[in-house]
Amino acid sequence: MTFFMSETTGKKPGPEFNSEFRTMLEELFRWRRDVRHFQTTPIDPKLLNNLISIAALAPSVGHSQPWRFVKVETEKSRALIRANFERANAEALAGYTEERAQLYATLKLHGLDEAPVHLAVFQDTKSHLGDGLGAKTMPETLTYSVVGAINILWLAARSHGIGLGWVSILDPDAAKDDLGIPKHWKLIGYLCIGYPKEDQDMPELHRTGWQKRLEISNFIIER
Amino acid sequence: MTFFMSETTGKKPGPEFNSEFRTMLEELFRWRRDVRHFQTTPIDPKLLNNLISIAALAPSVGHSQPWRFVKVETEKSRALIRANFERANAEALAGYTEERAQLYATLKLHGLDEAPVHLAVFQDTKSHLGDGLGAKTMPETLTYSVVGAINILWLAARSHGIGLGWVSILDPDAAKDDLGIPKHWKLIGYLCIGYPKEDQDMPELHRTGWQKRLEISNFIIER
Repeated sequence: MTFFMSETTGKKPGPEFNSEFRTMLEELFRWRRDVRHFQTTPIDPKLLNNLISIAALAPSVGHSQPWRFVKVETEKSRALIRANFERANAEALAGYTEERAQLYATLKLHGLDEAPVHLAVFQDTKSHLGDGLGAKTMPETLTYSVVGAINILWLAARSHGIGLGWVSILDPDAAKDDLGIPKHWKLIGYLCIGYPKEDQDMPELHRTGWQKRLEISNFIIER
Repeated sequence: MTFFMSETTGKKPGPEFNSEFRTMLEELFRWRRDVRHFQTTPIDPKLLNNLISIAALAPSVGHSQPWRFVKVETEKSRALIRANFERANAEALAGYTEERAQLYATLKLHGLDEAPVHLAVFQDTKSHLGDGLGAKTMPETLTYSVVGAINILWLAARSHGIGLGWVSILDPDAAKDDLGIPKHWKLIGYLCIGYPKEDQDMPELHRTGWQKRLEISNFIIER
C-alpha cells in the first residue's frame, strides 16, 4: 500500500488501493456467501471481537452507531431460537405448493445447529446518538446503518476464511423474548458464524435452481 | 492470491486471503467515508457500470436481487432533487435549537451540486424474484438486501479512489415523483458519487463535534 498527500488540502494522507487489491476485493465479494454448512470448529473469541470492532467502522446516519451485538451463547437461548425457526419455517413452507414446496423442503436454510457462534444484531431505537441528524425524513436509515455493519462484518469474516449465514426465518418479536432483549431494540439480523464446510462463488439458491442470478442490465435505468 | 481445494468436498477451490490483504481491507473500511466534498471531475461511465455490477454481488434474501439503480442525469431531475433537499433540510434545521442549531447550520450535508454522478437506489417491492424465500416473517430483509448492495458499491468505489455520499435528507415519496419512478418502488438511498476533495479516516460528524465515535465495548452484550 502506498500513501499520498491529498492535492486539495495537503493535510490528509489516505491509502491508495492498487489494481491487485481491487482484484482481490472483487474476489472477496464473489466468494462471500450466505453460509448454511458449517464446521463446528470454534472461532477464537478475540477474533470475533475484532470482527465486531471492524463492523462498527460501517457508515451510520448522523454517526448514530445504533448497532447492538448480542452473543447468543447459552444452550437455553440457542434452543429457543431453534424452536422459533422451526415454527417460522413450518409457516413459510405452508405458503408454497407442489414442486416449489418440494424444493423448499430440500433446502438447508440455516446452520443453527453447527455454527459455533450465534450473533444477534439489533438496532437500539431509543438511542440519542447522532441526535437525529439525517434521520428526520428517512428514519429507516438508522436501521440501514445496522444492516451496513452486518455487511462489513460479513466481508471481514470471509477475509479470515470464516462464513456467515443470515437467518431471517424467525419471528423477530418472539426472538426478543427468547433472548430477554429490551422492547425498544429491533432485531435486524440473526447470524450464524463459523468456518464453512466448503467455498462457493455462486449463491446456493442459484445452484439449487430456486432463483437464478440475473444480468445487471435488468436493474439499471436513467432519469 | 493462492487457491486451495476444500478439504470437505474436494470440489470447490476458493480464494484464500492473506494478512496483507486483510490489513488493506481494514484500511478500506477505515477510509471509506460519507463524502460531501467532491471534485467535479467526471466518472468514466464504464467504471460506474462496473461498480454497479459489483454492487449486485451483494447478498439478497432468497436471492431476490430487489435493487434498482437509477442514474439521475438530467438537469431537471437534479434540480428537483436539490429543491427536495432544501425543503427537507429546512424542516430538519427547525427541529434543533441554540448551539445545536448553529452547529447544524454550519455542516455540509451533501455534495449534490458538485458530484458528477447522482445514483438513486430503489427496491422494487413487487418483484417476484426469490419467491418470498426468507422474507415471510421479516419482509424488511428485502429492503436490507438493497442496503447491502449500496454498501458494496461504496467500498468498491473507494477502492478506485472514488467517494460516495448518502443523502438521506429528502422526502422519499416526493423524490419518486421528482424522478418519475413507479409507486411500488421504494427509495432506499440517494447517492452522490465522485472523486473526493480530500481523504479522511474519521467521520466528518466526529471531527466537527456533532457526534463522537464510541468504544465498541458499549455495544456488545451476551445472552
